[in-house]
Amino acid sequence: MNQEYVHGYDRRANTRLQDQHDALVDLLHSDTRYPEGSRVLEAGCGVGAQTLTLARNSPHAQFLSIDVAAASVAAARQKVEAAGHRNVRFQQADLFALPFARDSFDHVFVCFVLEHLARPLEALARLKEVLKPGGTITVIEGDHGSTYFHPDSAAAYDAIRCQVELQRAGGGNANIGRELYPLLSKAAFQEVRVSPRMVYVDSSRPHLVEMFTRRTFTAMIEGVREAALRAGLIGAARFDEGIRALHRTAEADGVFCYTFFKATGEKPE
Amino acid sequence: MNQEYVHGYDRRANTRLQDQHDALVDLLHSDTRYPEGSRVLEAGCGVGAQTLTLARNSPHAQFLSIDVAAASVAAARQKVEAAGHRNVRFQQADLFALPFARDSFDHVFVCFVLEHLARPLEALARLKEVLKPGGTITVIEGDHGSTYFHPDSAAAYDAIRCQVELQRAGGGNANIGRELYPLLSKAAFQEVRVSPRMVYVDSSRPHLVEMFTRRTFTAMIEGVREAALRAGLIGAARFDEGIRALHRTAEADGVFCYTFFKATGEKPE
Repeated sequence: MNQEYVHGYDRRANTRLQDQHDALVDLLHSDTRYPEGSRVLEAGCGVGAQTLTLARNSPHAQFLSIDVAAASVAAARQKVEAAGHRNVRFQQADLFALPFARDSFDHVFVCFVLEHLARPLEALARLKEVLKPGGTITVIEGDHGSTYFHPDSAAAYDAIRCQVELQRAGGGNANIGRELYPLLSKAAFQEVRVSPRMVYVDSSRPHLVEMFTRRTFTAMIEGVREAALRAGLIGAARFDEGIRALHRTAEADGVFCYTFFKATGEKPE
Repeated sequence: MNQEYVHGYDRRANTRLQDQHDALVDLLHSDTRYPEGSRVLEAGCGVGAQTLTLARNSPHAQFLSIDVAAASVAAARQKVEAAGHRNVRFQQADLFALPFARDSFDHVFVCFVLEHLARPLEALARLKEVLKPGGTITVIEGDHGSTYFHPDSAAAYDAIRCQVELQRAGGGNANIGRELYPLLSKAAFQEVRVSPRMVYVDSSRPHLVEMFTRRTFTAMIEGVREAALRAGLIGAARFDEGIRALHRTAEADGVFCYTFFKATGEKPE
């Protein structure tokens, strides 16, 4: 391989890195724009990572962003206010006990939330209640089962499986992305459309190698090491071999693939 | 699920089915257009499935389509002539012993060929020799390891693994799609760019369910049943369970995902 990458070396490199970061945000969010004056519920805003993009992309929509964790809501509020956005209100609230009247919102947005829920279908039913007839729901989820890479490594899949098993033990589903079509259909949304958003990473995309392969995906799997060992899901040597294999995919001849799924549906009139 | 699909029921349905077929061809080929008068080598044309699309999309380019199997070349010639294309010549020839002078072609196109070769890197080197400096190579390959679906099924992965193992035993690599970046880079092409082309299928896309999930992918896996049993790769009951599970993904609440990879590179001046 004849490529050497030095991050942030000059202005042109910095511009390219920013472009690649923007490309990942665009990949998931660029086609979500809400019209002026529309009322949008963001359910499960966490610390506001997606809220920032929502607020920026639809500056004339009115967002209400909720999360069950008060600390997350506080962090999200601080982040969004620091960025100067004035079109978001925040509230601590439980998805399964929404403190809103029926048909309150023009649109609902849910990102990286259903994967953590034991009853995603019930969550969709609750959100549908507060959505106006004719309003849309947008759901974005990842799918860890969509992960593959070069060089291939059985140990890496074993390490990833630990994360999937731990999330399942907690009632969640780390592979929920592929299920968005049946879930929204079963929740009786209509005009359900799913589009996969694949993240493809090779060394011609150095920022994605660093920010996605290493610092997002591999770091996430590394983060379950103690829990996985404690739960007896894997031995330490095998887990560490898997992590090394994931880092190996970030080298010059490596390739890493992961797919997010984005679904939209409409509440029947 | 409240959807019932009847194929070919009326003109509007037929139009939609044709649109979906075109969508799959477009997904792989729409961004390959060769300028008027350019000389293009299609290496490994098989029975001409891709040749038809090449000839139609670049009517003013001159194609030379080769295959090592004389019977395939004859079938491809018949198919392309029947479609009325006049811009393709055919020749029986071996990729590893090309009967062409160095720097003979403006562009090279290779689709679903490298996966069958024990020495894909050597094949790329041979193709590079007959390509003019500054000319491009385009490579398209699938990757069976990119397959996942809902409902999930370990038996289905076992059945797919039989195809992968049989292809490997024959010297090939059914998971080569993800390796196009390192392969073209190692063959010293420059400006290597890979773009994945994911086929996402749910029951809102009935033609893809039928033509891709059932008749392309599942039929291909079903086709290795005897060879897989003979090779002792799997038991009959487990294989058949896997095939049933693949058909299950084609039902109304099923989802099927597969990714092709398309790479382009340039021969240095």
